[in-house]
Amino acid sequence: MKDLVSMEELSVAEIGELLDQAGRFKQGEIWTPKKQMYAVNMFFEASTRTHNSFEMAEKKLGIDVLSFDPSKSSVTKGETLYDTALTMQAIGVDVAVIRHSDEEYYEPLRKLGIAVVNGGDGCGQHPSQSLLDLFTIKEEFGGFKGLKVAIVGDIVHSRVANSNMQALKRLGAEVFFAGPPEWMRESCSELGTYMPMDDLVEQMDVIMLLRVQEERHDGLLSFTKSDYHEKYGLTEERAALMKERAIIMHPSPVNRDVEIADSLVECEKSRIVEQMTNGVYIRMAILEAVCQDKETRVTTCTY
Amino acid sequence: MKDLVSMEELSVAEIGELLDQAGRFKQGEIWTPKKQMYAVNMFFEASTRTHNSFEMAEKKLGIDVLSFDPSKSSVTKGETLYDTALTMQAIGVDVAVIRHSDEEYYEPLRKLGIAVVNGGDGCGQHPSQSLLDLFTIKEEFGGFKGLKVAIVGDIVHSRVANSNMQALKRLGAEVFFAGPPEWMRESCSELGTYMPMDDLVEQMDVIMLLRVQEERHDGLLSFTKSDYHEKYGLTEERAALMKERAIIMHPSPVNRDVEIADSLVECEKSRIVEQMTNGVYIRMAILEAVCQDKETRVTTCTY
Amino acid sequence: MKDLVSMEELSVAEIGELLDQAGRFKQGEIWTPKKQMYAVNMFFEASTRTHNSFEMAEKKLGIDVLSFDPSKSSVTKGETLYDTALTMQAIGVDVAVIRHSDEEYYEPLRKLGIAVVNGGDGCGQHPSQSLLDLFTIKEEFGGFKGLKVAIVGDIVHSRVANSNMQALKRLGAEVFFAGPPEWMRESCSELGTYMPMDDLVEQMDVIMLLRVQEERHDGLLSFTKSDYHEKYGLTEERAALMKERAIIMHPSPVNRDVEIADSLVECEKSRIVEQMTNGVYIRMAILEAVCQDKETRVTTCTY
Repeated sequence: MKDLVSMEELSVAEIGELLDQAGRFKQGEIWTPKKQMYAVNMFFEASTRTHNSFEMAEKKLGIDVLSFDPSKSSVTKGETLYDTALTMQAIGVDVAVIRHSDEEYYEPLRKLGIAVVNGGDGCGQHPSQSLLDLFTIKEEFGGFKGLKVAIVGDIVHSRVANSNMQALKRLGAEVFFAGPPEWMRESCSELGTYMPMDDLVEQMDVIMLLRVQEERHDGLLSFTKSDYHEKYGLTEERAALMKERAIIMHPSPVNRDVEIADSLVECEKSRIVEQMTNGVYIRMAILEAVCQDKETRVTTCTY
Repeated sequence: MKDLVSMEELSVAEIGELLDQAGRFKQGEIWTPKKQMYAVNMFFEASTRTHNSFEMAEKKLGIDVLSFDPSKSSVTKGETLYDTALTMQAIGVDVAVIRHSDEEYYEPLRKLGIAVVNGGDGCGQHPSQSLLDLFTIKEEFGGFKGLKVAIVGDIVHSRVANSNMQALKRLGAEVFFAGPPEWMRESCSELGTYMPMDDLVEQMDVIMLLRVQEERHDGLLSFTKSDYHEKYGLTEERAALMKERAIIMHPSPVNRDVEIADSLVECEKSRIVEQMTNGVYIRMAILEAVCQDKETRVTTCTY
Repeated sequence: MKDLVSMEELSVAEIGELLDQAGRFKQGEIWTPKKQMYAVNMFFEASTRTHNSFEMAEKKLGIDVLSFDPSKSSVTKGETLYDTALTMQAIGVDVAVIRHSDEEYYEPLRKLGIAVVNGGDGCGQHPSQSLLDLFTIKEEFGGFKGLKVAIVGDIVHSRVANSNMQALKRLGAEVFFAGPPEWMRESCSELGTYMPMDDLVEQMDVIMLLRVQEERHDGLLSFTKSDYHEKYGLTEERAALMKERAIIMHPSPVNRDVEIADSLVECEKSRIVEQMTNGVYIRMAILEAVCQDKETRVTTCTY
């Protein structure tokens, strides 16, 4: 795997291998690159979890991490993302983890030798988050076939939802949607079934809540936070109707008492904290895959 | 010691142990955690000394440091400090060093397993600065009993002063205050004696100057810088009146020619540079204490 | 070499040694300091290449790097650069790499024990860029005697040009200039010959293009980008007239289709990417030189 930019490019077998490898890392397996490798995490949009989780994964694999702050970089002098990535490659960086607001920002970078790992492209894809969600589900249920999984909320702005709904369908899960109808994507009707929140909570094995991304709505939300919670949120009342073994997921950051009642964030059914923990192991598996690929290629910028 | 949030929570014996351990580090003692540990320094207020001093201490102890920039984190999306700390714990961070403008920001974080080290909370406490000040005094005089120590200046806005005056009193020093009367705290009259600057300089063993924190006065200072220097600053004339073995301290950053004459900052009586050097050893002692405590607890996020 | 602040301070022999050492690093030579050393990269102006290249060089030499963000440091509280550098020295930092908008910012810092490496001072000097340019030329042609080297463009705002024109002259190259006449420096006429771009391209061995630094012109450029490209840029037509073995250089970031046609940036004659790669080896040589010097001095802040 030279780059990881979207879930579509991964075969079902490749997804399975990444999840298995993440499981081995969680069991304590150790892997380090044969020669010293270098990574840079270029986050042009705010992030705590994804950024620090990749950094933790890099450190656990013994990959050296270069600092990068877009607001202090030559990007402020008008340099393109391509030229910035070319620079990183020229100085000997092996892997660039990138989050950028432009969808498919990664296309021009793919001809470079540097490995590109997509940490989120606009409303496009967020493959590492999708893989950690899949890992968390598989860890819970052993597999995906026949599982009923709901994705709830701001699907149109969510790159996680976009990555997840396609992957879950391919893996054999039955996908459902809830949330404001104007927030669905066209692809929702092909990939799954829309259902009112109150019906949905009783039937699902997994309820994946999405963050209301105020920052992507230009401040124009047509409802208040408590309205949203009432209509589409996971309230304590709704949670009480969930199946016994059903679980609650959320990619975080959570808007407490909006998507989910404050008291449920760390409840027994919640896997929200576990998702963050699993994120490190998934990212270790992704980084191992691109580093191993890089080790097999002839590189022009060796040191 | 699970966390270090304030001086009040440390017994006299615990303070003594931390100072002794810092002394051993200064002599060259080496300590590293049994398993790899991870720290994150979350500074929501500007800092050079405290931030870099903790980072240096972490590096010297072999603790791996994750990057964190509040302006690039999910805090900008409205995430709370609790959820940010929960995230850090979930991805495997052992110690969070935090500076935040909210007093007692640390209270909700204490139930987490992650160790919290307070790098300054609003006008509340600054225990690592207090400990390095104590270390510097003890290094000079061997102890605290009967020492006359003055704290001069912006006491009401100073978390260092707040931490120091209590600790010095408990350790047996005699505490004095000088500076604009409107800048004293209520607790000053209980803990020590107010004295005009000119009388004070002749009698003290230690003169601790405080920074005029313009950034906390909303630009509304009732005097000019040279007025302040004249009335409450350590001028060359006043310094000439100090006892032979008396020392000058300042937590930095110094406003040269305001709290202290420019020529005195690096003078023979000044321990201002030594305080910064000692800060690294004190922070090594603090970090060792919380890491050792963490090693003895059962952790849920082991890797 | 205690500090590296300008090219003028390096003798021709010292330049030769640094280039040779960089060459050995490029061949795979390894050097690490005898005791753990610490560096801080303080970039008060935006940078990708220089900043990350120094950081990569530090990591390859096993030097530990402290983080520094001017916008989060006490500089925002009015602390001077001297006091910031004094702090770094006090906490045990061995080398400070600094970029700052003030010309000769480094003068007051030279009395400190910390090694100062100039990463660019206003429109003053940029010695590490100059050395990597010289390295790239020497790698190509084996030496400098009799080489015809052109520096083209915004010379008055370019610290690289300032560093390079002096060094090239001393090393025996013949220096030429092109670009808007109002962008020349007074020293240009002493050090070389101004020539129209069209005449120049046919005669040079090396064409060093400079970035049009819009950020230093207060938005007041007297021509459009395509005008500049037409008059002074390296167009495909002009490149076709270059000598067979002649090379194209640019310190980056490149304004594509302004200083140079987009299609030429990575063309066969271009050494632009190689310059970035070479920058790491040159910076390793510089850092080795100041670290070795520091190892021989008595230090006051040992740990």
